[in-house]
Amino acid sequence: MEIIKGGVTAAKGFCAAGLNAGIKNNEKKDMAMVYSEKPCVTAGTFTTNKVFAAPVKWDKDIVANSPFAQAVVVNSGVANACTGKEGDDACAAEAKAVSEALQVPESAVLVASTGVIGAQLPMDKICAGIKELPKKLGSSLEHGTLAAEAIMTTDTVDKQVAVQIEVGGKTVTVGGMCKGAGMIHPNMATMLCFVTTDACIKKDALQKMTKAIVSDTFNMISVDGDTSTNDTVLVLANGMAENDIITEDSKDYQTFYDALFYVLRELSKKIAGDGEGCTCLFEVQVKNAAAKEQAKVLAKSIVTSSLTKAAIFGHDANWGRILCAMGYSGADLEPEKVDIYFESEAGKLKIVENGKATDYSEEKATEILSKNPVIAIADVKMGNEEATAWGCDLTFDYVKINADYRS
Amino acid sequence: MEIIKGGVTAAKGFCAAGLNAGIKNNEKKDMAMVYSEKPCVTAGTFTTNKVFAAPVKWDKDIVANSPFAQAVVVNSGVANACTGKEGDDACAAEAKAVSEALQVPESAVLVASTGVIGAQLPMDKICAGIKELPKKLGSSLEHGTLAAEAIMTTDTVDKQVAVQIEVGGKTVTVGGMCKGAGMIHPNMATMLCFVTTDACIKKDALQKMTKAIVSDTFNMISVDGDTSTNDTVLVLANGMAENDIITEDSKDYQTFYDALFYVLRELSKKIAGDGEGCTCLFEVQVKNAAAKEQAKVLAKSIVTSSLTKAAIFGHDANWGRILCAMGYSGADLEPEKVDIYFESEAGKLKIVENGKATDYSEEKATEILSKNPVIAIADVKMGNEEATAWGCDLTFDYVKINADYRS
Repeated sequence: MEIIKGGVTAAKGFCAAGLNAGIKNNEKKDMAMVYSEKPCVTAGTFTTNKVFAAPVKWDKDIVANSPFAQAVVVNSGVANACTGKEGDDACAAEAKAVSEALQVPESAVLVASTGVIGAQLPMDKICAGIKELPKKLGSSLEHGTLAAEAIMTTDTVDKQVAVQIEVGGKTVTVGGMCKGAGMIHPNMATMLCFVTTDACIKKDALQKMTKAIVSDTFNMISVDGDTSTNDTVLVLANGMAENDIITEDSKDYQTFYDALFYVLRELSKKIAGDGEGCTCLFEVQVKNAAAKEQAKVLAKSIVTSSLTKAAIFGHDANWGRILCAMGYSGADLEPEKVDIYFESEAGKLKIVENGKATDYSEEKATEILSKNPVIAIADVKMGNEEATAWGCDLTFDYVKINADYRS
Repeated sequence: MEIIKGGVTAAKGFCAAGLNAGIKNNEKKDMAMVYSEKPCVTAGTFTTNKVFAAPVKWDKDIVANSPFAQAVVVNSGVANACTGKEGDDACAAEAKAVSEALQVPESAVLVASTGVIGAQLPMDKICAGIKELPKKLGSSLEHGTLAAEAIMTTDTVDKQVAVQIEVGGKTVTVGGMCKGAGMIHPNMATMLCFVTTDACIKKDALQKMTKAIVSDTFNMISVDGDTSTNDTVLVLANGMAENDIITEDSKDYQTFYDALFYVLRELSKKIAGDGEGCTCLFEVQVKNAAAKEQAKVLAKSIVTSSLTKAAIFGHDANWGRILCAMGYSGADLEPEKVDIYFESEAGKLKIVENGKATDYSEEKATEILSKNPVIAIADVKMGNEEATAWGCDLTFDYVKINADYRS
């Protein structure tokens, strides 16, 4: 697997665009489009929040019932969540406008929105944007970046990853972009992720691996414990690499799985590391759990703990908060067995051994915790399973951003 | 029921003391003692965190197996959690010292600690404190206040409540004190609560009602979603009111239940309203849920949401975050039915009707949200059950306090 530059336009046959449609009432880009020359088999995972946005409902239907998709239109600024029938009608109107502009069926159009909950989409601006976007489509890296920028809200950087693999003598490319900085606790936040690939792959195989990978990547990140109404991961595969079709049984399944896993994991980490107001990516590894699910619950409980996150911001090796978060997670635990380490580019230090503090140097600990990223490792010594979760520190700026997000 | 001044010394036969034993290495009081002239039947509820502090283990044993308790000794500054066998031995040594100082059996001594996790108790200071405390015991309100101050950590005010009721012609008094400001998400936080009463009541009746009341009061507050290692509620009843003994079947059960409920609810609200760094008490009422448990899950999900808490700090009527938190709570919900109101001394405003924004005045909403306390009411229109949860806003000071709590 080779890591390459790029995002949604890295794979063959995909082009993208981003522009300012005036939705945010400022100078920032707020609409993006992704288009594939050829129809794509499509997989998706979506928020489990019972309050889900209109575009989530629309896309779920397309992914489940439409054989192909060919275009995605995304706006930032307004989430089109809690908007009732008017919100559903807006999605249909978007699809119709894209269908006319790109000459694709309405059933091949995916839509996504991110931003403030409860406001209706400004359909005049959206429709004007949809007419303009096709004129700006292009397949260069720069076009991918324009799209990645247009989907940002409180994100401070655009988020793109791409890789190439060999499948049966053919080069297959997988690239993606995502956004998300707050309301991030995906169970499947206003987290959006779009991955494109030129792989030739069966739809059920793509859906199966996407679901499995999301549970180990996007579902293992948390910025603030709030699961959004709009979380969406979409994977579009247009087959233009001309590899032999990948099925669940083919030997190339794992090769492609690994590539998609890498892209989704790195995109997840980019969201966690750009969490609202954060100063560092905080990675938590739980080792030697009795079961994988237990390891995941423990890792996610630590990475979600406000007290632990504030301590990380303070470069304070307050391991008691980590052990405390493990204790209330609901997972099996024998606290008197637990070892805890902190690690970063400044080194690795065992802070806790068998549930009690080691004679560690606070000075060294603070040095380790002052770097980015910071890793906490908890060895629970109950089995052989492990899991990793990603989050960030809790800072003054998180509060600042969220005390007046709407203003 | 009459609300009176006072706390743990309000009921007949109870005295208390508080002093500076040097545990915190500053000028603040850090040890408290409560003593009853007569032996008390005792009820208790404790943290459900699998990582629980040594004094929790000690007190659970006393409440379960000892017919009576007569004294409580509490220190702040060090939590005696994650301290292994040395921590257990410290509890036993404390009980022995109290036993000698007060001439009560060791099995009648309850111990509690709050503060930093992972450090061992400084037993020389603790034992010197235990020798000094009995000389300072007194039954005045001021003595109760000294004890309430001595158990504070990041609390900004002491927390006491007392009431009187009539039980069969006799005046029965119930008074209590508590502490807690961070790591507050009791399931049964470093939350400690001590209630004294001169009621004559059977132990099983006292335990049953304490457990039921805690589930509707302390278990319905959250400052930061972190369930502490030390959470303890202890109720001591010494019978000196000389009322006919209260049993599960007696007509006075409900009268006493209501009094204990009031004391525990008001103490809970004092913790939520003094949450670390907070500027207001945030109360959430869920109305017309299908089941009580569903109402509790919804109320607690809203009051725990970091995004909602930050919006409350910003006086921002960001109702989408409330509906979002309801949606991911796991409780049944029909989002398109939900009405949401904000209320405070500045008035009451319907913000959401049937899942969508009303045409409310943002100016008026901001005015309502600028008061303390702030109440959010969610009417889910699915049944007749309701629940209330209490929390606070998320502020810059929460981050400041917790980024360097240990320094």
